Amino acid sequence: MLKSLQSSITLPPKRRGVYLVTDKIESKIAINSGILNIFLKHTSASLAINESYDSSVRVDVESFLNSLIPDGWRGFTHTLEGDDDMSAHMKNIFVGSSLTIPIVNGKLALGTWQGVYFLEHRDFANSREILITQIGE
Amino acid sequence: MLKSLQSSITLPPKRRGVYLVTDKIESKIAINSGILNIFLKHTSASLAINESYDSSVRVDVESFLNSLIPDGWRGFTHTLEGDDDMSAHMKNIFVGSSLTIPIVNGKLALGTWQGVYFLEHRDFANSREILITQIGE
Amino acid sequence: MLKSLQSSITLPPKRRGVYLVTDKIESKIAINSGILNIFLKHTSASLAINESYDSSVRVDVESFLNSLIPDGWRGFTHTLEGDDDMSAHMKNIFVGSSLTIPIVNGKLALGTWQGVYFLEHRDFANSREILITQIGE
Repeated sequence: MLKSLQSSITLPPKRRGVYLVTDKIESKIAINSGILNIFLKHTSASLAINESYDSSVRVDVESFLNSLIPDGWRGFTHTLEGDDDMSAHMKNIFVGSSLTIPIVNGKLALGTWQGVYFLEHRDFANSREILITQIGE
Repeated sequence: MLKSLQSSITLPPKRRGVYLVTDKIESKIAINSGILNIFLKHTSASLAINESYDSSVRVDVESFLNSLIPDGWRGFTHTLEGDDDMSAHMKNIFVGSSLTIPIVNGKLALGTWQGVYFLEHRDFANSREILITQIGE
Repeated sequence: MLKSLQSSITLPPKRRGVYLVTDKIESKIAINSGILNIFLKHTSASLAINESYDSSVRVDVESFLNSLIPDGWRGFTHTLEGDDDMSAHMKNIFVGSSLTIPIVNGKLALGTWQGVYFLEHRDFANSREILITQIGE
């Protein structure tokens, strides 16, 4: 018999950068098999899955994002909240707010090198809320 | 007892640009809690979640996409359908065709500033079809 | 009565490029209606949905990705595994590891021109594993 369960995680304020949150997500698992959806309720931060072993990957993801989508890009008109605001929204358009990951044997079915990234795009952000929905048995 | 429900929305033809469709999605909600998947059946338009309050964000998303992925990029070989065709496919690769959003208390569990964007990438498109699948109770 | 089913696909090693895998996914469908989640357990390859008819679109997606996210980008520090390693991770951040597609009448509810792409970002990769989770009836 399938069930649907919801819970939430609040991340304390973080500086701009890329952080691993795999452990925080795994601590909420309450089904044995099915899917787990992670939804970030913000438009200036993102969620992604990538290499969890070598922290230099997280450094490089941050550098490349900042280079491709520069703060204060000449074409932006939404500038009242600072040079890092519209670039943050644009990064979120590309990286995304939501992940759906399979659960197998009560664990996230990630590959050997995969981890869940939280990407804070603002220099000085408030806390961030993540909603977790599990559907399975 | 969980259930699975499907319905569809047809968006009338729109010019290239970024549009809010949150209300259209919400009008289809028929469960109290679970997840809602929104699937766009096209390869030259996209779905995303971002800032819904200030329309200048939608203008800037459009400008930045057009700058990063230019129409008629010199390397494109798929050019028979016009300069805005392959750039539209490429935008869709980056932005995506599908969103999965939690439902809580019979509503999309969006953050305060989040809305659902429909991004039309072609200059002169036909109508677009969105399929909605809800799983929950 | 809803059920949740899981299965996997192993893709043999492929050279860098964009491949259609729609048929491989469809061969695993075992429900009539609901959703199907496709999850790639790797950080140097991606999944996307795009134009399936004209193979020139797949060629152009590959060219544009390589141009936008160059191998050996000057800012990368994660370089031990070769010039195509960190660029591969970055492409995966943008394109993504997971797709959720509706199932209608026992088939992927794709639009007329949509197909499922597997994007191999490494020059010489090993085999790749995809996990499929179906929830529906």
